[in-house]
Amino acid sequence: MSKSFDDLLKRLSQVDKKKVSVAVAQDDEVLLAVKAAKERGIADSILVGDVDLIKPIAEEIGMNLDDYELLDVKDKIEAAREAVKLVHDGKADMYMKGLIDTKDFLRSVLDKEVGLRTGRPLSHVCVFEMEGVDRLLFLTDVAFVPYPTLEDKASIIKNTVEICNACGIDNPKVAPLAAVEVVNPKMPETVEADELRQMNERGEITGCIVDGPLSMDLATCPEAAQHKGATDRKIVGDADVLLFPDIHAGNILYKGLVHFANVKNGNLITGTAAPVILTSRSDSFEVKVNSLALGALVADSLKKNR
Amino acid sequence: MSKSFDDLLKRLSQVDKKKVSVAVAQDDEVLLAVKAAKERGIADSILVGDVDLIKPIAEEIGMNLDDYELLDVKDKIEAAREAVKLVHDGKADMYMKGLIDTKDFLRSVLDKEVGLRTGRPLSHVCVFEMEGVDRLLFLTDVAFVPYPTLEDKASIIKNTVEICNACGIDNPKVAPLAAVEVVNPKMPETVEADELRQMNERGEITGCIVDGPLSMDLATCPEAAQHKGATDRKIVGDADVLLFPDIHAGNILYKGLVHFANVKNGNLITGTAAPVILTSRSDSFEVKVNSLALGALVADSLKKNR
Repeated sequence: MSKSFDDLLKRLSQVDKKKVSVAVAQDDEVLLAVKAAKERGIADSILVGDVDLIKPIAEEIGMNLDDYELLDVKDKIEAAREAVKLVHDGKADMYMKGLIDTKDFLRSVLDKEVGLRTGRPLSHVCVFEMEGVDRLLFLTDVAFVPYPTLEDKASIIKNTVEICNACGIDNPKVAPLAAVEVVNPKMPETVEADELRQMNERGEITGCIVDGPLSMDLATCPEAAQHKGATDRKIVGDADVLLFPDIHAGNILYKGLVHFANVKNGNLITGTAAPVILTSRSDSFEVKVNSLALGALVADSLKKNR
Repeated sequence: MSKSFDDLLKRLSQVDKKKVSVAVAQDDEVLLAVKAAKERGIADSILVGDVDLIKPIAEEIGMNLDDYELLDVKDKIEAAREAVKLVHDGKADMYMKGLIDTKDFLRSVLDKEVGLRTGRPLSHVCVFEMEGVDRLLFLTDVAFVPYPTLEDKASIIKNTVEICNACGIDNPKVAPLAAVEVVNPKMPETVEADELRQMNERGEITGCIVDGPLSMDLATCPEAAQHKGATDRKIVGDADVLLFPDIHAGNILYKGLVHFANVKNGNLITGTAAPVILTSRSDSFEVKVNSLALGALVADSLKKNR
């Protein structure tokens, strides 16, 4: 069971080396990340994009292109299509966004012929290693699904449990969060959280333990749960997965903790046939490398369970 | 301009001593807080409640009741009514909850004869001193108004600006938060945030600068705003007030930061004729004392502006 990104790297060192296909690779920050991933043994890369633009960046950052597969495709949309096809065809294990609009990148992910559709809705997971928490936390969805319905939330849980399992966390504890820990008919978020708990008890959501609604402190702090006397719950400050009622609650918390708590993190798009790494320019170098490590672990797990 | 709770205490040392009226004062944690407030020169108290129950607690915590006014009222509802009347009649400056249900306490606050109604909606403000932020942050509403309408949000801003002013912060910068910093018609929270900005520009919300929608990082981190190139906004990581789209977003962030960032905080109910302190048992001793300090400053400011 991994409790930190170092644990994830150790876990990764025991599996076959994975390969990432980068769509429109002429992006300095993305190249820095795949270079570090190569150097640290996290993953090899296939760089798909305009090689005339990739070369000068590689030179500037001291990246020896002899160590990478290159596929020269000038047009961005076409490059993304070629890059995702490599993953679709099993020639690469995961897919990463380079210098291309998010919308165009996602269109390639969802391409019916060469994309990574599974029929399940896509969602985003952010994995946190945070000072004060003795385990990894899986935050979802802080970036992709704006207003998940009950059905969406069940899918998001399924997607996220897969990521937990890949990180060696079996039967994770899932906390649908709200402002309060009791069902209040005037707060639909608390009603849905309770419905998710019931669906889990009825065996409609499997591979995890769902207990909601929970406030942030009862989900994450054993001391707070003790203090409030909430010790008869299935989750007593020991949640693995934090499921947010909507993107605003998730994103505001995510950015608040990234900036004001001591956090290491990595992110993936899930619900796809292979891991998809869609980091933004505001994500740090380490976040991109952590995301590649996560992607490699998840790719390995997906392959083994195929 | 106060940048910390120490600054607030310095500010408080320059004004007339204030007095808090405690409803149903037979509560060990509340008595500890009013005792500390007395010792630190923050506020004197009138303890309204069952004196037979107050005495043994006072003895246990080494509190000399000769230093406090006592009003013996056994019935809790009646005690709250007497306690709030003291504030209503100007015999005390602020009102604090003791061992009484929140619902009954709020009923006394809203009592038409002896309560503290102003006609404005009530809201909650939480004042944060947080490592990594060079000023006080005013979070609203993380505890009281579940789903504020646009009109409610305008009232909440008005209430909160009053608290900022009492803390020596003139013309505070108010950030209506969302997951994103651009208006998206599919996200009503971003549309309302933009409407609040326009209302501020048209002079319908005064005494502050409103800029929204803003993501948490753009509102609070100047470096993030620089990095994202969002330097043409009115708020560039320097917001004073964080206005949340709903109670879930607010409460989840609030608890996340209290537990995982380095935070000092205090809370008040605002929109009332005098400050109301409604801390919960899960609030620490220091939070209760900080709230009394805030209340005393706000009481002083309200008196001067009357």
